[in-house]
Amino acid sequence: MSKGARTREQVLEQAAALFNQRGYHGASISDVMEATGLKKGGIYRHFTSKEELALEAFGFAVQKMRERFDEALADKSSALEQLHAIISVYARIPTDPPVPGGCPILNVAVESDDGNPELKAEAQRVLGGIKQALRAIVRTGQEQGELLAEIDREAFANVFVAQLEGAVMLSKLFGSPIPMRHTVQHLTSWLDGFAAPA
Amino acid sequence: MSKGARTREQVLEQAAALFNQRGYHGASISDVMEATGLKKGGIYRHFTSKEELALEAFGFAVQKMRERFDEALADKSSALEQLHAIISVYARIPTDPPVPGGCPILNVAVESDDGNPELKAEAQRVLGGIKQALRAIVRTGQEQGELLAEIDREAFANVFVAQLEGAVMLSKLFGSPIPMRHTVQHLTSWLDGFAAPA
Repeated sequence: MSKGARTREQVLEQAAALFNQRGYHGASISDVMEATGLKKGGIYRHFTSKEELALEAFGFAVQKMRERFDEALADKSSALEQLHAIISVYARIPTDPPVPGGCPILNVAVESDDGNPELKAEAQRVLGGIKQALRAIVRTGQEQGELLAEIDREAFANVFVAQLEGAVMLSKLFGSPIPMRHTVQHLTSWLDGFAAPA
Repeated sequence: MSKGARTREQVLEQAAALFNQRGYHGASISDVMEATGLKKGGIYRHFTSKEELALEAFGFAVQKMRERFDEALADKSSALEQLHAIISVYARIPTDPPVPGGCPILNVAVESDDGNPELKAEAQRVLGGIKQALRAIVRTGQEQGELLAEIDREAFANVFVAQLEGAVMLSKLFGSPIPMRHTVQHLTSWLDGFAAPA
């Protein structure tokens, strides 16, 4: 990696943490300058605007999430194992987030849904991708006779994601692992009901 | 109501909408001036700081939510009817929010959980109150033999709130009533399983 590419990566890592904790409006270029020790020109050499930096920082944070998903899913072959692996990635967020500040998707979704159209579109794209992955896992499980054929895959994906993102919010707000733990228990027994009879 | 009190109420209503849509950091006193047509001095006559205005505006938004809960619960006597009434209040948020911008509790919780301690404490207090109300409804239902004795009330409250707030996030992000509809269907059949045998 060239020196320029390394600097760019360091700026992204710091910016991802700042934007994820303080939000797009709450974090300033001055904050990024302070965190990186760079002057304004050193940041704008790599990113043309705060908006571009925020978008790329969100991409950086999402990549950290994706690495966790990939790692958790790597050795899971059955649909139920894969779904439990995805739950475990979410369960870790409140106490050990992929970047400081919790779930970047939740944070960007809630901040940008009435505002920043570029960030909103990115959050839609990422969350749409997670929902698509969930539907694909369920479909494969259904095709292989592991999961009940009558599961509505779109409803499943919505309910699954809503619960986990809502649980991240609660556990972060109260600084407690309990809301997430209760949600994981609920999801686990919910998933038990989806197994097709052997 | 005196003229001063009316002005104060109008500022709060506009500020509640602005903060709920753009967030504490995303909305400025200039935005409030523009929305209300008041000069800065006219706003600071009623609120000593942006922080105080944001706290009071959050209180205003929460009061609008509370009015909906009170109205929905007014004629409901059984625990299950009351729980369905609370679901119906949440179900309305994405398409017809109590103040523009969706659920003020979700918005403030997500923005303030790593930052503004006063707003965070208020969000904790309000969400703690909703959870307390849910536990009380379930306890009464259990005492009266309507609901199963084995329901863990704290787990119930966490799972119930996580799903609904997560569904608000999804439906708002995608501009679609479907995620909330799926969540309501899931919660409805979940609640069916809590009825004690007659």
